Amino acid sequence: MSKTIERELRHVTKISDLSPKEVLHILETANDFKKNPEKYSDYLKQKTLLMLFAKPSLRTRVSFETVMTKLNGHAIMYSIKDSPLGKKETYGDTARCLSRYVDVIMARVFSRDEIQKLSVNSSIPVINALDDFGHPCQILADLQTILEKKGSFEGLKMAYVGDCKNNVTYGLMRGCALVGMEIRVSGPSGEEFAIEQEVLDECKEICKKTGGVVKVVADPVEAVKGVDVIYNDSWMSYHIPKEEREERLKKFMPWQVNSKLMSHAKEDCIFMNCLPATRGDEVTAEVIDGSQSVVFDEAENRMWAQAFLILVVSASDCSKYKTQSNCNSSGDQCKCVWYQCMKSNKVDEVS
Amino acid sequence: MSKTIERELRHVTKISDLSPKEVLHILETANDFKKNPEKYSDYLKQKTLLMLFAKPSLRTRVSFETVMTKLNGHAIMYSIKDSPLGKKETYGDTARCLSRYVDVIMARVFSRDEIQKLSVNSSIPVINALDDFGHPCQILADLQTILEKKGSFEGLKMAYVGDCKNNVTYGLMRGCALVGMEIRVSGPSGEEFAIEQEVLDECKEICKKTGGVVKVVADPVEAVKGVDVIYNDSWMSYHIPKEEREERLKKFMPWQVNSKLMSHAKEDCIFMNCLPATRGDEVTAEVIDGSQSVVFDEAENRMWAQAFLILVVSASDCSKYKTQSNCNSSGDQCKCVWYQCMKSNKVDEVS
Amino acid sequence: MSKTIERELRHVTKISDLSPKEVLHILETANDFKKNPEKYSDYLKQKTLLMLFAKPSLRTRVSFETVMTKLNGHAIMYSIKDSPLGKKETYGDTARCLSRYVDVIMARVFSRDEIQKLSVNSSIPVINALDDFGHPCQILADLQTILEKKGSFEGLKMAYVGDCKNNVTYGLMRGCALVGMEIRVSGPSGEEFAIEQEVLDECKEICKKTGGVVKVVADPVEAVKGVDVIYNDSWMSYHIPKEEREERLKKFMPWQVNSKLMSHAKEDCIFMNCLPATRGDEVTAEVIDGSQSVVFDEAENRMWAQAFLILVVSASDCSKYKTQSNCNSSGDQCKCVWYQCMKSNKVDEVS
Repeated sequence: MSKTIERELRHVTKISDLSPKEVLHILETANDFKKNPEKYSDYLKQKTLLMLFAKPSLRTRVSFETVMTKLNGHAIMYSIKDSPLGKKETYGDTARCLSRYVDVIMARVFSRDEIQKLSVNSSIPVINALDDFGHPCQILADLQTILEKKGSFEGLKMAYVGDCKNNVTYGLMRGCALVGMEIRVSGPSGEEFAIEQEVLDECKEICKKTGGVVKVVADPVEAVKGVDVIYNDSWMSYHIPKEEREERLKKFMPWQVNSKLMSHAKEDCIFMNCLPATRGDEVTAEVIDGSQSVVFDEAENRMWAQAFLILVVSASDCSKYKTQSNCNSSGDQCKCVWYQCMKSNKVDEVS
Repeated sequence: MSKTIERELRHVTKISDLSPKEVLHILETANDFKKNPEKYSDYLKQKTLLMLFAKPSLRTRVSFETVMTKLNGHAIMYSIKDSPLGKKETYGDTARCLSRYVDVIMARVFSRDEIQKLSVNSSIPVINALDDFGHPCQILADLQTILEKKGSFEGLKMAYVGDCKNNVTYGLMRGCALVGMEIRVSGPSGEEFAIEQEVLDECKEICKKTGGVVKVVADPVEAVKGVDVIYNDSWMSYHIPKEEREERLKKFMPWQVNSKLMSHAKEDCIFMNCLPATRGDEVTAEVIDGSQSVVFDEAENRMWAQAFLILVVSASDCSKYKTQSNCNSSGDQCKCVWYQCMKSNKVDEVS
Repeated sequence: MSKTIERELRHVTKISDLSPKEVLHILETANDFKKNPEKYSDYLKQKTLLMLFAKPSLRTRVSFETVMTKLNGHAIMYSIKDSPLGKKETYGDTARCLSRYVDVIMARVFSRDEIQKLSVNSSIPVINALDDFGHPCQILADLQTILEKKGSFEGLKMAYVGDCKNNVTYGLMRGCALVGMEIRVSGPSGEEFAIEQEVLDECKEICKKTGGVVKVVADPVEAVKGVDVIYNDSWMSYHIPKEEREERLKKFMPWQVNSKLMSHAKEDCIFMNCLPATRGDEVTAEVIDGSQSVVFDEAENRMWAQAFLILVVSASDCSKYKTQSNCNSSGDQCKCVWYQCMKSNKVDEVS
């Protein structure tokens, strides 16, 4: 048994860049961190996370920056609105320079293409914090919230209703598949709302291994029947022009989450939304402000779940990255978060 | 005697949200902090202050951010210029999410209405860092400076001259009332310059308990006669259109603080201004750059005074918030800043 | 021998504000920091660097902010784009206030005049992070890189080719002069490209003491013949209008660094560029992406070199600024970075 185990560079551009075991490990540790923050108070001591933002953000910005302080590191807020990537210099030059300074990069950009160019050129981990193809940080927080409320993923069903050609929808499909849940996705028909085939194919592959189920269901009532979780997202995502509002509202209205739709789900069904939400559009006030809504717990979990995403990707080798200051052992005896995670991952690959 | 004493959630939207005892306690501790910063170097360890800014700021920004580092915490700079509160999502949703992430919120916004909406929806303390109704951080720094220069508030008189329908003026009126000083407020007559009745009424109530005196005096010379402190603020606050400059200058000129006006005050009278100042407008260079001016000490004290405002509001219960790492006692034996403050406050309420 | 040695306030507006001994001391310590970062992990504990930016920046921003975290301090990012210095209040008032809050100021502004006004009014050190007259942070990183690659400055020759009326060129001329290197500067002729006489005169004076050589050479091939380092910068610096691009390209093309030009230098000649670079303009892809290019090491060294520039300028007296927590001695016995540096400087002045 070697003393240190090297691990290749990890980027997380979508939740399925993590293995099922890694997802579960992150969720468990995130939950422990939430309960015992002091245990982890030096885990990223004097490490730096660079946050690249191409669009406005509240939850992502504040949750990442706060949790870096809780872990004794620092987060740099860098707006690429005024100084876009790939304009003044190539992605390659930018990524290669940044890799020399900071420990991890988090990027909120417009397209999967930008995340690709950034991660391909980085020698440090890149975490996608929202592009047009996924939103892994949100999905981890969502799964943590479900685990918190339901105790386990075993036998759980989620209905995602509304805008399906969407980064959050894609992420939830992948995430539910990874943890072996059933997800039913339901929204208006038509090419402009259609889920990309690539995502459906990917989920199918994951489900083969995990026993998860990913279904597209036309009717909203049928979609939510007997589910444990109802989830939706804004009908007016950032990139959609305001002029389309009226027409979109009309098309989406049958998928609005209101008391009536909720009544078809399980009695203890929870309501989730990644926020910001517009009351009267995708969800009524009675639902989002009601007792079944867990949207603020969900928002809070962004912070705890992201912390361990950073830890997992930023650990490259056991000896370089002692996450427990009192851990002098290595290899199998090592108690450090990343090592435990890597080990479970290894087992996963072997089995 | 209970072991821990719970305290309700505290917001500070104006200086008079603090009791006279609390104000004095903050000033004393701020002064000790200034002299012995190392004593307090872990008081906000890994805590996060969120700074929401709707307008540009130099002193507020830099003093808050620096002092959070001195206390071993972190301050997030969040500009709400591009992403205004209450637009993309409700105040309620924003405040409830932020309450899950950070420990204290500081907001520099345009109106008292915005501060209200934010604090009503927050489950963590909100500190007003300037709206159209008050500026409690500035007032604490002003009082700290006066105490430093004069030794005590006993028998002191301040004249505030110039623009009276103003957040700083309102704050000084409340602040002087709280510490039992006399303040004479003097500026141009006319509806557009009139102090809001609500502020006058509030100060009257405070003065009944503290022995303070708040007077409106028409004549500038009469206002400054024999005072210990002359204070003024810009005649062109942020919200005033540049086109009004000429006309305002003419009206305000009799209240300009120059050597002649200063000569009517006590010989050891100090000059204060919350900056930025325009030499030749509200104050002449000979005064603001002269030996009686204390404006840079006043600016510096923003940092020390704010530190203890944060501490006082962020402490909610003695056991949760040990501000001294070596303090194992609770209740009456507890030496922690917040507890001492709360105790003095309690006494204050009883007496 | 006095117990503590007071040192006057230090600003670094150009590399030649440092003595040759200081430069060498900074480079050696920066190199040690790069190898053993943990040794220095508390050197700027809870100290604050204020970064004033008037123009966009990637490397400067991220390298300074990251290294302040590595030294356990904090860097404030303050954009003066929206709130320019000297507009809302005088430089004097701004600098005097900031001097009360933070420990060091770093400024990236447009003109030497702005840096002057800021430093003249500051009672804390001001570091120029690029104006129209110099770029000392870049030059330190460049020298550190050369030392890393070549082992010593002894007998080394650099050719700077291209845009010579330029902050980086001026800085390299001063820097090479300080460490006793030979630099040959070569670019288009004409008034608009001419090096300011003041810089040539200053370098001449430095060279008298150090044995350095600063030459202006018309022909690019002659300039690079037998050199150890070829260096260039963008032909389209921030302040140059885009309309001039075509015409400038034509004039500058003979100074493009391509394989052919490189072939005239020593076989082990390294290529340097302060980035961002435009492939096909000032340098071809084969050179900047080839084996002789050290541009990313050079970019990385910004971080390590700047750290010690901050330390050297921010140390004002041995007892106030213990840089080694276990250092109880003072005077000659003191092992602290600044003291060692100051001592070597003193010796330098005496000899």
